[in-house]
Amino acid sequence: MIDFDYWSPTYIAFGKGKEARTGELVRRFGGHKVLLHFGGGSAVRSGLLDRVKASLKDAGVDFVELGGVKPNPRSSLVEEGVRLAIAENVDFLLAVGGGSVIDSSKAIAIGTANGGEWRKYYVGREVKVRPVIPAALPVGVVLTIAAAGSEASTNSVINLEPESLKRGAGGDILRPKFAVMNPEFTMSLPTFQTACGITDMFAHLCERYFSPTRDVTLSDNLCEAVMRTIVEEGPKVMANPSDYQARANIMWAGTLAHNDVCGAGRAQDWASHGIEHELSALYDCAHGAGLAVIMPAWMTFVHGADDARFARFARNVFGVGQGESDGKAALDGIAAFRGWLKSLGMPLTFAELGAREEDIPLLVKTLNLNGNTLGAFKPLTEDDVTAIYRLCL
Amino acid sequence: MIDFDYWSPTYIAFGKGKEARTGELVRRFGGHKVLLHFGGGSAVRSGLLDRVKASLKDAGVDFVELGGVKPNPRSSLVEEGVRLAIAENVDFLLAVGGGSVIDSSKAIAIGTANGGEWRKYYVGREVKVRPVIPAALPVGVVLTIAAAGSEASTNSVINLEPESLKRGAGGDILRPKFAVMNPEFTMSLPTFQTACGITDMFAHLCERYFSPTRDVTLSDNLCEAVMRTIVEEGPKVMANPSDYQARANIMWAGTLAHNDVCGAGRAQDWASHGIEHELSALYDCAHGAGLAVIMPAWMTFVHGADDARFARFARNVFGVGQGESDGKAALDGIAAFRGWLKSLGMPLTFAELGAREEDIPLLVKTLNLNGNTLGAFKPLTEDDVTAIYRLCL
Repeated sequence: MIDFDYWSPTYIAFGKGKEARTGELVRRFGGHKVLLHFGGGSAVRSGLLDRVKASLKDAGVDFVELGGVKPNPRSSLVEEGVRLAIAENVDFLLAVGGGSVIDSSKAIAIGTANGGEWRKYYVGREVKVRPVIPAALPVGVVLTIAAAGSEASTNSVINLEPESLKRGAGGDILRPKFAVMNPEFTMSLPTFQTACGITDMFAHLCERYFSPTRDVTLSDNLCEAVMRTIVEEGPKVMANPSDYQARANIMWAGTLAHNDVCGAGRAQDWASHGIEHELSALYDCAHGAGLAVIMPAWMTFVHGADDARFARFARNVFGVGQGESDGKAALDGIAAFRGWLKSLGMPLTFAELGAREEDIPLLVKTLNLNGNTLGAFKPLTEDDVTAIYRLCL
Repeated sequence: MIDFDYWSPTYIAFGKGKEARTGELVRRFGGHKVLLHFGGGSAVRSGLLDRVKASLKDAGVDFVELGGVKPNPRSSLVEEGVRLAIAENVDFLLAVGGGSVIDSSKAIAIGTANGGEWRKYYVGREVKVRPVIPAALPVGVVLTIAAAGSEASTNSVINLEPESLKRGAGGDILRPKFAVMNPEFTMSLPTFQTACGITDMFAHLCERYFSPTRDVTLSDNLCEAVMRTIVEEGPKVMANPSDYQARANIMWAGTLAHNDVCGAGRAQDWASHGIEHELSALYDCAHGAGLAVIMPAWMTFVHGADDARFARFARNVFGVGQGESDGKAALDGIAAFRGWLKSLGMPLTFAELGAREEDIPLLVKTLNLNGNTLGAFKPLTEDDVTAIYRLCL
């Protein structure tokens, strides 16, 4: 186990009807004038946005609105949000939606608190050291998609236009103050989006679990516990989108997969996320769908670096590979993972994703390794990344 | 899964040498003048207290000192601490020690912020509704014992003199602001105290795991993950007290066992804690030792209310009872738990604890059920509690 700091201060209000507490929670965490940020029509159509507004009014919280956040959230809308928030003297960002809305809100929270400046904190591998974000407005969340974990994470990823580069900002200051989580909100999601979310949260655990750090018994056991939960409950929500209990377990799993309670004390990998971001930046595909293509390919490429770890994954998460050699069990585990993704309706190849073989050199170039390596489990060179992309064909 | 709120905002600084950050963390969370509260001589002898003081001085934090906290912390020292803190204009409580020191600090934090009043917030089953604590100074922790989980919990238990009643206060306001956790601090603990801590943290998980609530797959899997970790790593620290990795896993497990991440979404039991508190109040025995006597007796008495749950415990935590009936597996699991406690050197009977059969009516009386029942897994009457005490003979 390596030394770590752990801080996950987000207040979670979980269960049916909890959106009625939104206004109270904004007040509790110091908000008086809110920018209510959301995506497309589903929060409007479902009546959720009206219920949230009613809660704000009941609590005497003033608000302005900005909708229109798209998946892979765009910098242009962030700019618009920052202008609006500054003009309206907003002191609190309220995201009603999923990871994209939350990440867009975090960016606006940075820009509003720093005289309009936010873009310089969104960086990629071109920098060695992330710039420290000096200030950000507090952010609250009413979560409608179980996936990204952004409701309790330190991170935000924005698609920077016009280059269409996905770049991230990070820091404790970006942890949301609260998250209202009513599993009923997730029941009306399209099937494909539900499956993308399940894939994304599972990937967040893999990025932590496949680590070179040893002697992290507790974090290993926690990772496997949440992964097993997702493997078990995910198919239930696919089979019956209105299964409240399965939705609740999946929703809470999405938070714990990424608030870093499962990552304490070890080096993390994050290569698959980096390799995927280039796909969703170039093709505007769903992040979870991109991960479904990349993660098994990454596993296939790297497992030999530590077959014992992959054998443990196979046995403890998917219940396969018992009594086999580690090498054989590792392959069985990857096959089981792939089969599970397929059962969720996820794509597994470039073709299914709409990605193209001839773009691989461009994907590798924009990944911007600059002669460095990517990831910790098995540090990857540009040639390695090329090989992983080719395994997706 | 039932609705829940979850809030665990304690900042954890975990690893070797982290005590050097104490002063910085006090400043970060608003402290200028600290009451440095500690127990007996070990923190002095080990040099830890000096290192903490040096860190406070480096950060420009003023402090006064109050040592002498005993296990089952006494109300008289709390009174002394409140007088001192008010007289010295203290604005931050810093606990250097284990659960008793932290709980005493929490009580002083309440008293100092409420004009000396703290005792009325420490209540037992004589009240239906806990009084809300209106204010408390912030509390920080430098943890030296892996056990109580008070470093990130909402609770504090004090032995109220002269009646020697153990009574508790609770509320989000009592969550410590930070906890410095260097596993090396725990290496010099006496063997018995280490084992008591391991027992206590395991009990915190049992109180959450043995619940009547269904469909909490994630919380169940998390509980089992932490329990398995304790079962595996506990004997390692007993065999080799200087095993840093095992100490680290046990120390972090103690926090996660009681910050309620393993309890989200379900009714909790806490009968064993209630039944034990009467033992440590009357005999001043170690809380963990009392739990080692009570918990297997409680399990023996209640398992029939849900043998499937106990069978799952047996199979998933202790790896016994595979392929057996649930009823048989339940008994095997309890036997395995008892054997594990014995291997840690824990007492299993009243006699080993220094408790006496003739005191059972008094223990039941001071438990103060007032015609109500105790616990959620199987609600217990006074007769049931009597039977459980008798199973400890």
